[in-house]
Formats: sequence, structure tokens, C-alpha cells
Amino acid sequence: MFFHRKELQYHAKPDAPDPVFAKQVQELIGGQFGEMSVALQYLFQSWNTRGNEKYRDLLMDTGTQEIGHIEMLATLVARLLEGAPVYEQEKAAADPVVGAIMGGMNPQHAIVHGLGASPKDSNGVPWNAGYIVASGNLLADFRANVNAESQGRLQVARLYSMTDDRGVKDLFSFLIARDTMHQNQWLAAIKEMEAKEGVIVPSTVPPEWEATEFSHTLYTNSDSTASQLDFLKHPAPDGQAFKVEESKAMGGIPELKPAPPEAHNTLPGEND
Amino acid sequence: MFFHRKELQYHAKPDAPDPVFAKQVQELIGGQFGEMSVALQYLFQSWNTRGNEKYRDLLMDTGTQEIGHIEMLATLVARLLEGAPVYEQEKAAADPVVGAIMGGMNPQHAIVHGLGASPKDSNGVPWNAGYIVASGNLLADFRANVNAESQGRLQVARLYSMTDDRGVKDLFSFLIARDTMHQNQWLAAIKEMEAKEGVIVPSTVPPEWEATEFSHTLYTNSDSTASQLDFLKHPAPDGQAFKVEESKAMGGIPELKPAPPEAHNTLPGEND
Amino acid sequence: MFFHRKELQYHAKPDAPDPVFAKQVQELIGGQFGEMSVALQYLFQSWNTRGNEKYRDLLMDTGTQEIGHIEMLATLVARLLEGAPVYEQEKAAADPVVGAIMGGMNPQHAIVHGLGASPKDSNGVPWNAGYIVASGNLLADFRANVNAESQGRLQVARLYSMTDDRGVKDLFSFLIARDTMHQNQWLAAIKEMEAKEGVIVPSTVPPEWEATEFSHTLYTNSDSTASQLDFLKHPAPDGQAFKVEESKAMGGIPELKPAPPEAHNTLPGEND
Amino acid sequence: MFFHRKELQYHAKPDAPDPVFAKQVQELIGGQFGEMSVALQYLFQSWNTRGNEKYRDLLMDTGTQEIGHIEMLATLVARLLEGAPVYEQEKAAADPVVGAIMGGMNPQHAIVHGLGASPKDSNGVPWNAGYIVASGNLLADFRANVNAESQGRLQVARLYSMTDDRGVKDLFSFLIARDTMHQNQWLAAIKEMEAKEGVIVPSTVPPEWEATEFSHTLYTNSDSTASQLDFLKHPAPDGQAFKVEESKAMGGIPELKPAPPEAHNTLPGEND
Amino acid sequence: MFFHRKELQYHAKPDAPDPVFAKQVQELIGGQFGEMSVALQYLFQSWNTRGNEKYRDLLMDTGTQEIGHIEMLATLVARLLEGAPVYEQEKAAADPVVGAIMGGMNPQHAIVHGLGASPKDSNGVPWNAGYIVASGNLLADFRANVNAESQGRLQVARLYSMTDDRGVKDLFSFLIARDTMHQNQWLAAIKEMEAKEGVIVPSTVPPEWEATEFSHTLYTNSDSTASQLDFLKHPAPDGQAFKVEESKAMGGIPELKPAPPEAHNTLPGEND
Amino acid sequence: MFFHRKELQYHAKPDAPDPVFAKQVQELIGGQFGEMSVALQYLFQSWNTRGNEKYRDLLMDTGTQEIGHIEMLATLVARLLEGAPVYEQEKAAADPVVGAIMGGMNPQHAIVHGLGASPKDSNGVPWNAGYIVASGNLLADFRANVNAESQGRLQVARLYSMTDDRGVKDLFSFLIARDTMHQNQWLAAIKEMEAKEGVIVPSTVPPEWEATEFSHTLYTNSDSTASQLDFLKHPAPDGQAFKVEESKAMGGIPELKPAPPEAHNTLPGEND
Repeated sequence: MFFHRKELQYHAKPDAPDPVFAKQVQELIGGQFGEMSVALQYLFQSWNTRGNEKYRDLLMDTGTQEIGHIEMLATLVARLLEGAPVYEQEKAAADPVVGAIMGGMNPQHAIVHGLGASPKDSNGVPWNAGYIVASGNLLADFRANVNAESQGRLQVARLYSMTDDRGVKDLFSFLIARDTMHQNQWLAAIKEMEAKEGVIVPSTVPPEWEATEFSHTLYTNSDSTASQLDFLKHPAPDGQAFKVEESKAMGGIPELKPAPPEAHNTLPGEND
Repeated sequence: MFFHRKELQYHAKPDAPDPVFAKQVQELIGGQFGEMSVALQYLFQSWNTRGNEKYRDLLMDTGTQEIGHIEMLATLVARLLEGAPVYEQEKAAADPVVGAIMGGMNPQHAIVHGLGASPKDSNGVPWNAGYIVASGNLLADFRANVNAESQGRLQVARLYSMTDDRGVKDLFSFLIARDTMHQNQWLAAIKEMEAKEGVIVPSTVPPEWEATEFSHTLYTNSDSTASQLDFLKHPAPDGQAFKVEESKAMGGIPELKPAPPEAHNTLPGEND
Repeated sequence: MFFHRKELQYHAKPDAPDPVFAKQVQELIGGQFGEMSVALQYLFQSWNTRGNEKYRDLLMDTGTQEIGHIEMLATLVARLLEGAPVYEQEKAAADPVVGAIMGGMNPQHAIVHGLGASPKDSNGVPWNAGYIVASGNLLADFRANVNAESQGRLQVARLYSMTDDRGVKDLFSFLIARDTMHQNQWLAAIKEMEAKEGVIVPSTVPPEWEATEFSHTLYTNSDSTASQLDFLKHPAPDGQAFKVEESKAMGGIPELKPAPPEAHNTLPGEND
Repeated sequence: MFFHRKELQYHAKPDAPDPVFAKQVQELIGGQFGEMSVALQYLFQSWNTRGNEKYRDLLMDTGTQEIGHIEMLATLVARLLEGAPVYEQEKAAADPVVGAIMGGMNPQHAIVHGLGASPKDSNGVPWNAGYIVASGNLLADFRANVNAESQGRLQVARLYSMTDDRGVKDLFSFLIARDTMHQNQWLAAIKEMEAKEGVIVPSTVPPEWEATEFSHTLYTNSDSTASQLDFLKHPAPDGQAFKVEESKAMGGIPELKPAPPEAHNTLPGEND
Repeated sequence: MFFHRKELQYHAKPDAPDPVFAKQVQELIGGQFGEMSVALQYLFQSWNTRGNEKYRDLLMDTGTQEIGHIEMLATLVARLLEGAPVYEQEKAAADPVVGAIMGGMNPQHAIVHGLGASPKDSNGVPWNAGYIVASGNLLADFRANVNAESQGRLQVARLYSMTDDRGVKDLFSFLIARDTMHQNQWLAAIKEMEAKEGVIVPSTVPPEWEATEFSHTLYTNSDSTASQLDFLKHPAPDGQAFKVEESKAMGGIPELKPAPPEAHNTLPGEND
Repeated sequence: MFFHRKELQYHAKPDAPDPVFAKQVQELIGGQFGEMSVALQYLFQSWNTRGNEKYRDLLMDTGTQEIGHIEMLATLVARLLEGAPVYEQEKAAADPVVGAIMGGMNPQHAIVHGLGASPKDSNGVPWNAGYIVASGNLLADFRANVNAESQGRLQVARLYSMTDDRGVKDLFSFLIARDTMHQNQWLAAIKEMEAKEGVIVPSTVPPEWEATEFSHTLYTNSDSTASQLDFLKHPAPDGQAFKVEESKAMGGIPELKPAPPEAHNTLPGEND
């Protein structure tokens, strides 16, 4: 069950309005790797964890805080939209700067949300649950998590270069730090699990389910330089040796049987 | 540029029709971590790579083969739908087995695709590009890739248990092996990159952009057991020590300014 | 069955081209609460109404007119795009105003629709049927309808401030009026139904299905001021008294059983 | 900022596994009016509220609890999937009941989530943020909220009839009660706001923006019975009298100008 | 502007309830080529037509009738859901036929729509405007239209085989006939336009915009039999001769420049 | 199975950076009729073809090349983003041209993709598989294909007018030529198939399935000029004569039966 306190986890006060940047910040709220994604990903992973209480709690602790990250960014966006000339059409005709703002901002900030944040990305595409992962296999999901925190920190770093507002940068410095921590924690958890289970997910596949002659071969194209990659000279992470071969076809040419008449497909033999 | 040969990379011949299983196999074609996702993810990552030719080629080699994996699974689905009583309504009334097939299959296999595969997941939801990742940062993206191959191998393993068709299992044993290889290759590439760049993505963030006092602290809730996790006793992957603290609020209570009249928001003070 | 007359329901003639505003007007066509939403919402509600002929007809009459509202707005958008320099790249290089138009307009108006309207919102996101409601319960759906007309009138009012084109404002004054009427009619119908059924939807839930000890309690967080709201001192709309309590957990700590081996989930006890 | 306690708000223990019902319960998690929708709708409305602290807090208190409702339902789904024969293909061939379960369940519960809940609806369609509303106008949004709680309670009531599991019904009796409370609270808040602002949203539109001659007229089709509705005889909710007229066209026949050659549209006059 | 009469265009009375078939019929309402698609496609094409009044009217006449086709199918679905045991859980436990219905039907028909039609496809995926086409070029769009009517008639024919309900088949026989007419009318209009404009869309591209040496060459793969197609021996539809060549690469190997530091991409040279 | 060579099929070198145009070019990659659509449409059609080997190979040859078209356009977009001032906030404040670029470009090119191409359209909407068609009936699908190539060529022609970059125009001249070829090839294949099967798809519907009295009638509205279309005077493409009639209703007024109590719909008779 969840509880709320009215203070933000960290400050979210821009120095000045900037509606075009407000549009761009939306990526961190409702983008593929925005805070809605990590919050809901960690919550669903926690709710679906069977046993493994400490990991379940780690997921819940982190997910709960990420809801607070949406809160800070929503506050930031609302403030970036405060005091900007977004409805001032008459000025826009006379002032190219106002015109550029009206063309460059997210129109829904003005029309739909009344100068508030939106649950969408920087192009106005609604967040959807197809972004998130909760598989029931923790090693698989921790890999999803370290990816999400890597993409997330990368995006904040890029946005950091796209503003010179010190208040915005203050919040971003906090988010960059938290993404460092979250990369650290998921990497450490992965290391801990790999030590017990091995590196290939899922660890529980019986050997007779796997055509192991294909488990360590890199197939390349003729003009590819991938075969020169250093790591191929060392044992693979699961301890076996890598092999390199030219791509090849091992199945025959497929032929499908005709469909029944009720399918109303093109008749077979129409153009044979 | 791309070329095609008519042989499949591996066999894709089920022993018998099974329209309900054909619906389930769609997850491996058009699901979040199906072959459409990995094929297009690797291709876009390759096309967006600047320099780093060998990695660029590795991405392209792997992505090109994944298109061939869609091909094998599309062939498998088409064959699972061959010879099944999907249009035989009169029999269905009399025969509960036929009725169950008609209720349990994907109706679009019959109505839309004429007994062919669909670019959608096991619930019939169309594949969309919101599933894939191509950030321009290879370490970030290789983490996305090892996650995709982990989720993918996990899903094939689960489906392996849901059929007793030996032809299907033969193809699945190949896919399980290739997912082993791909986990191996991305893990090895990650290790290689981390050795040069360090483990925190992106490696290029200047220290003054980061509020480093928050970069190693696990914030927990009062009844959480996450603070007992073993890995917290060891140095974090980036070499610093972890800290554990109770979750706390460090920003003040946010207050937003009133919206301008043109926003037609609720008037401030309406219920203060 | 439907019929069409070639006259518009009302005028839709802007005084001058304005491609950036054409992008913004799209919110009223293909946005969450645009005319496509209300048209199709009322039609599906009407088609799904069982008995209650007069309400069924009210829904149909209103829905049929809303199709004509899409028509007026599509005409408006097509005219806002007429005569604007959207393809004039050579001028754009020299003239920052032309450049701003090309950056601020919806590119699909030029590339995809040949200067015509699009069935999408102001960010170019396609309209989808997940926006609409047709539940078979008229009181529930009339509440959806009064919401849709409230959001719709609010959006037109905001757009009214964002243009100084008198022709556009003329059409908007008509839409504002119709949204007034539609709020009035759904509010009146709601009042009529509530008088018969009571205010809680659905009215047909037997008392023994409801844990009535939780039906009138406001649960708050410790620092919340919600408990000071005036309305809590009065009887609730269904006639009972409101109560206020601090949020509390009444269920135990959930523990899930281990998954079967075929799920290939993390093994239980892995980190307990 | 948010905090979590490990106890559930209420019990979520089904008596027995039921994978087909688990699929159906997903509507309450990730459907248009599921708990993800109300949780995120209330949170975004709260974050976007300017002034009006008590309402802001009411939204936050309610939204925070709704996250806990997702938690209860996710737990319920995970338990409905426990101990069911979802991977037992060999039995399925022999046992039509097992076969029906495999055909009638959500395949992603087995393949993607390892017997856990999914952030999707009862057909497996991912939740998306296009479902939610946060306009900055509280009266508009409270109408959205009473609609959401009406649709939500209706759906729980229908699902109540579709199971005879007493544990499931116990949780549903709690959800039905909470939806009663939430309808009560939003209705009471609406009444309070309407008393101050009037019933037409937004209340701030100047009269000269509105073509008031169209603000109270019901336009009907010739064979419609809507004109016989009782409520039309009484004053409209905003105090004016309703009028009834046959639908009519007041704008002329629109003619669009030719597109410029760069649009490569059909040439005008091609078929005139 | 639009008007409605209460009679259906044609009968829509199934002989008996069939909830599983009701799910399948949804493809014709809200599928990619369902009636929502053709209705809205023709309306938007008409609204965007500049000049060419007769074609504009043809589009409008056809689109207006297609709204009435949604109406017939929505009525059919509502009736297929009437009187079926969809809420009778107690019977379902005892009766495998009832169980199969509950597993094979669309759960939203029961939970969300109260036994009414849904604006979604046969898998419950919401209709979206990404399905439709309105380009401003009539020859292009008439090709879209003949495709839509071809796919639509094909789907009705397949569904015809999947039921033995005479009432359903009566309606389907009407839809099959109308799709014949609509294929005829768009094919005739295409022929008329091609006679004036030529067959290649758009007809207005100046020759110097086209690298005409590539305008008639079929590029094949080495083991392809496509070069044996009969039509290659005849002049192409635009009057030139076809050529056949093996696929070849004519551009060089692309190399991208390094990204600027602010992009935080992988550093160039990292693995060269 | 698929293979790759590192050369592009054709040149893709713009003369200069242009981030706003990079956004617009995305329509050709991930739009409804972009190269992702045609590539995947042809591949799925090929994989689902039963018999008809030469057509199957034609689809595969064409689809394989279209993947290479995505490759060229992704390269073009990456280069249009090279060297542009997209992260230079400090300059933007001083220089309106930089400001206009930052407002007019796709923010995800900078934030998400690190100056690389995106699998989305010109508004940033992700590509989805709902755009593509693979029905199992080749005549139907070839009509989809000629439509796709017509819309595609039209879009390239429009974009050609929106740039004066000679490098971009060089690539576009190649794409225009290939779309000419592909229109030619699908039109020729259609002609070949129609000669054998007739023009109405599917050709296999038995006459008794069709209410043939409605197969050649154009239904018009009273003020429509469609009845004056020339083509109506000639035999329809299937050889029969067209008829013209005023639109009429032939089914009765539908009445639905009450829903069962478990549906909790509005009670019948509530407002009759």
C-alpha cells in the first residue's frame, strides 16, 4: 500500500519559463525510458516476484521513488510553462520570438492540459505499457532495468546540454546521480545472481532442449569485419569458445500446402 | 544492401496442425521481444553507429540473420494452420474439440491472413517500433540487446513446454541455441566496452553535472528488507561504497502559480 | 441509415491561411475529445442501447450532427492550409517567417494529405477507439458524455485565444454554443435518471455485494488538507454521511507461491 | 514523494486457480477504466493543479490509494494463475478441460509474465496514456473522474457475476464500496464547484465568444422521438429554456481552392 | 451535414446467439479493413477533395452509406450476444460448452460493453486512424479504395464459411454485393482517371526529377524465379519495356561522422 | 535467409545538415507508406504465399530491396543531423535561426537517438504493423501494393519540392524511379491475374452467397452529382451494367432485447 508526503524528493524550480524545452522534457516523463516506464516496470516486477523477498523489496523501494520522480518532472514542466506567452496571438504576429515559441511548443500543453504536464513523450505520443517488462525471471528483468537506467541517464545528459537554466540543471544533476545509483544496484544484483545461476537466461533450460552446436557461433557476411572483434579470441561469458562462420542456410526451401477453398486465397498453380 | 536465398536458415516443420499453438507462437514473431524487434533493433543500431566499424558490422550481421528468424517462424505458423478445421462451422456444432479450436485460435489467422502468419503478438496486438532501442551509445544499446535476448530465450523455453510437437521443438532448440550465442556475444562486447569506459552509461558526463552525494545511496521504506541484500556490503560496480538510508523528501512543497485567464483553468483560490 | 446534404451546418471560412494554427486545430478533429470521439461515442452508445427509445434517439441525433462537426473542422483545416508557403523551400532559406512556418506546421499536412485535414490530434497521433465509451449503462455513459463536452468546450475556448482570425472565431463561437447545449442536455438527462435510479452507478448492485463499511470513508495522508473540504460536512450525494480516516492497510503482506519449473522463473529462495 | 508499506490495503486471495478468469480480471488493471487509469489520472490532475490546495490533496490522496488497488489486483491475478495446468501440454491432448483453459487464457500470462499480472486489458492490449484526462480545469476533470468511477464500478459488478470464487468476491466487494465512495466524493465536489461557477464548463468564456442562439436548441431528425424527452419541458441546467428544431444546414456548400502544383494532388477540373 | 433515418439499410437478424462468432464479426467493424475504416476513409477523402465535384460527391455518398454498414454490424453483434450464457459462471463449471463460450468470446463484450458492439477488431484491438488514407490525389486514393473493398469482401467471404446462421448469411450476402459494387465503381473511376493522367501516380512529376534508367528494371536475387514471370515480356503499363537484372549495390559504403560530445554517443574509434 | 553487403543500393549524401528536414524525411522511413511498411508488407506476403512460386519470389525480391531503402534513408537522416547546432542552447538564445531549428526538429533525434534515424513517422509516431497487409489472396494484396507505391511516390515528390539540397534530390530521383517500377510491376501482375480470375476479389465466391441485385447499384444522396459521372454510362469492370438509385433503407427499425440483470445495463423501459 502507498502513502504520500507533500514535499518533493528534490527541488524542481526552473529559473525562467521555456515552453519549447517543456516539450522536450516530456521525454523524461512519458518516453520509452521515462519515469513512468521505470516506475511501473519496477512495481509490476515486484508484484510478480515469487519468493526472493529482498529483491522484491528492492524493486518496490525503487519503483515507489520513481513515482516521485514523475512528480518532480511534472512540477518542472508546469513551471516551465508558467508566464510564457503561449496564448498571445496578437503579439505573435508582431514578434517572431513569440511565433517561434508557439510553433515549437507542444500544442497540447496549451490546449489540452492548461499549462500542465502530459503523460506523453517529447513528440506527444502517449506512454503505453508495451514499453515495460515484468517476466517473472529476475535476472532477465534486472538486465531490462540496467538498460532502462542507462538509456535514462543518457537522455538526461543530452537534455542537460540543451538548456542553460540553472534550476533545471540542478534537478538534472540529481536525476543523473540517481541513475548512477540505479545502474550500480542492478549491475550488482546481476553479478550476484549470475554467480549463482550462470550468465545465460534462463538458467533452467535442460541441455537436451538446446541445439548446442549453434550456441557459440558468430555467423557473418562476407564483407563484414565483425570476425576481427577482440572478444571473440577469449572464452565466451558462459565459458565455451566462440566460433566464427560465414552465414549459411541449413533448412530447405519451404513449400506451403494450398489453403482450403473457404480461405478464398489465390488458387495454387495460378502462376506456377 | 540486402540479398535473399530461398532456403531457410533452419528447419521449420511441425508434425501436425495446431491453430491454438499458432496463436501462441505469434509472441515470437510480433511480441515485444519477438524476432521483428531484434531484427529491426539491430538494423537501426547499425545504421546509426558512427565509427566503430566492427561493432557496426556485428549489429548488421546479427540483424540480417534475425530477419531470417522471422521467416522461419512465419513458415512455422503457416504450417501449424494447414489442415486444421478452422472454417468448419458445421462440424464445430457437433464436435467440442473443433469448437474449442475456433474459440482458442487467433481469428485473424482465418479472417485476415488466410492461414498465414501475422506481424502481431500472441494476443493480436500489432508490433510497433516503440519496442526498439537505438540510442547512438553502444554500451547502452548492448545492454538493451542482452535484455532482449534474455527475454527472448525465456519465452522460447516457456513455449517449448507448451507443445509436444517434435518438429516445433526442433526449431525451438535452434532458437534457444542462437539466443545463447547472442547473450554471449552482447555480454562479451559489454565487458570489452566497460573495460575501456567504465560501467556507468554514459561515461562522458562531467563530474560537475552530477550531484554525487546521491550516486550510491539506496533509499528504502521502513519495512523493507532490501537493506539486507548481500551486494550492498561490497563496493558498487563503479568502485564506490554503497550507502543505505530511509527514503526522505529533500525538496519543499511545490506551489504552482495561477494560470493566465486564457487557459480557462479553475480559478485559483476556488477552494483554498 | 445515414444521409448527407452538401451544405455545412455552419460557416467554416478563415480569413487567411495559417498552417501552424491548422496543426493546432487538429486537436478538435482527432484528439481525445475531438469531434471524431463524440461522433463515434454517441453512435456506438445509440447502437448498443436496449429499450429506452427516446434516449437512443437523442444519442443518434447528437452523434449524427457531430459527424457534421468533423466536416466543418476538416474544411477549416483545408482552408487554413490554402495559399500558405508550405512547399517553398527557396524562400524559406531567405525568409525566417517561412522557415518558422515549415518548422511549426504538421509535416503530414504537406507530405501525406496534400493540404487536407488529418484524422489525428494536434501532435499527429492517430485517433483511436480507446478514447470512447459505450457501456450499455446510460447513466454511466451520460457522465462520460458531459465530461467529453466539458473537455471539448474548454479546448475550443483555449484555441479561441490563440488566433485573431475572425472567420475561425465565428466557427468557434458556434462550437462553443453547441457544447453548451450538449452539456445542458446530458446534465438534464443525468438528473432525470438519477431521480429514478439514485446517484451511484450501477444502481442494481445488491447490498450484499458491497462492503458498505468502506463506502463513505475518505482515506487521507497525514499532511493532506483534504479532510478540511467543506462538502465532507454535508451528507454524501447518496444520502449517507461521509467519514474521514487516515489511510491504512487492512490486508496482510502477500506471499506468492513458487512458479512451476516450466515457467523458468527465478528459483524461489534465490535471495531469501 | 511516495512511501510504501508491505501490507495490502485489503485481502486479495482467491479460493482456487482460474486462468481464464485471470485474463478477464486484467480489464480492472490495464483497461480503459482500470486502476492504472484512475491512479495516473488523479496523480497528473493533482500535479497540474494550480492553487486549490484541498482539491489538490484530495486528488493526491485518492490517486495514491489507487496505486494500491493495482497492487491488490496484480496479486489476485498472480494467485489465479498459481497451480493451474497452463504448461501441461500432454494432459491437454487428453483432457478437454485443460485444452479449454489453454485456449481461453491470456497466452502472455504464461509466455511473457511467468504467471504474473500484465499492464494490459482483458484482450491483452497495453494500457496507454490516451485513456486519461488532466485538463487544469477541476470541474471538467471531476466530471471525468465521476465517469471513471461509474464505469469502473459497473465493470466490477459485471465481473462479480462471472465468478463464484468467494475470495475474489471478497476483494470485489471492497472495490465496489470504494467506487461508491469515489462517486460520492466527486459528485459532492462537483456540486460544490457548480454552486460557485455555474454548470457550464469552462465558466470563464465571455458571452461575446458564444453564438448563444445555438446554446439551447436540440436538433433532431424527422423520425426521432428525442423531442418527447421529459427533461426538455424544464429549464436547462444553466437556467435557460430548451428549444427543439429539426436539424438544418446553415453554412453554404464548401468549395476548396486548387492545391499548388508542388502538392501533386489531382488537378482541379479533372472531373468537373 | 448528416441526417439519419431509423431503419437499417438492410436486415441484421441472426437466428441465434453466438458470442464466439460475435467476437469474430468485430473484424468487420473495427478491423484494418472494417466498416469504420472505409466510412472514415471516404469521408476524409471527400472533405479534402479540391475541385472534381462529382468524385467528391461519389466519395461522400459511399462514405455516408458505410456509416450505415457499421450500424448494421453493430446491431448484428448486439443480437449475437443476446440470450447467451455469458455471465453464468455456475453453469460454466458444470457445462463445458458454457465454459468454452466464456473462454472463446471477447471478454469486453461482457465486461465493458454490456452485450453491445465494440469499436475494435476481432482481437479487441481498438480501431485507429493509422489505417486510413486521404492523400489529396484521387488516383492514388481510389487505388487505396479498391484495395480496401477487395480485402473487405475477402474477409466477409471467409466469415461466411465460419457460420451456419441463415440470418447472419443474409446480411453477409448484402455486404458481399455492396463490396462488388464498390470494387466496380473504384475500378471504373481508376480507368477513367488513368485514361487522362497515365498510370503512374503522381502524373505531375517532371521527367528531370526521375532517374529514369531505374524506372523499369526488376532486380532479382540469384535463385529467384521472378524473372520468368510472363508479364515481363510485355510492355509495362506505362508503355516502356521491362528489364531484368541481378540486384546490385550502386552507392558506396556509408561512413558517418562522429557525433558531437553533447550527444554522449560512444566515442568514435572505440572499437576500430 | 538474408545476406547483407555494406554498399548502399544508391547514394545518400546530402550537401548540408538540415535537422528540420530530417524530421520530415522520417515519413519515408516509418510513416504509413514508408519503407518499413513496404519492406515488411512484401516479406509477409511472400512468406504467406501458398504455391505461385514466381509471384512469391517477386514479393521476396522486392521486399528484400526495400530493407535496403530503409538503410539509405536512415543514412540520409543521420547525415542531415550531422554538424547541426542541435545541442547549442547558448547560441539559441542569441540566434533566432538556431532557436527555430531547435523548435522545428524532432526532439527525439537529439535526446533519444543521438543524431540517428528513428523507426517513426514525421510526427514521431512509432511505425506499427497495423499499416501492412498480407491476406493470402494475391490479387487483393497486389492492389494493396500498387496503392502503397502510389502513395509512396506521391510523398517523395512532395518532399522533393521541400528541399533544395542536391544530394537529397539525387536520392529522391532514385526512389521516384523505383516507385515507378514498382507501380508498373504490380499493375502488370494485377492485369495478368485479372485476366484469369476476373476483376472482383475474391473470385471464388459462389453466386448464391451474393445478393446480386445490389452488386451494381450506385446509391446517391439527393443533391449529389455523382450520378453524372461518365463511367456510369459504360459497363462496369465486371461486365454488368451500372444502375443509379437514391439511397434507401431496406431493413426495419432495429429493436434490441433487454440485457440480463447481470449486465447491470440501464433497465429497459427507463425512458420509454
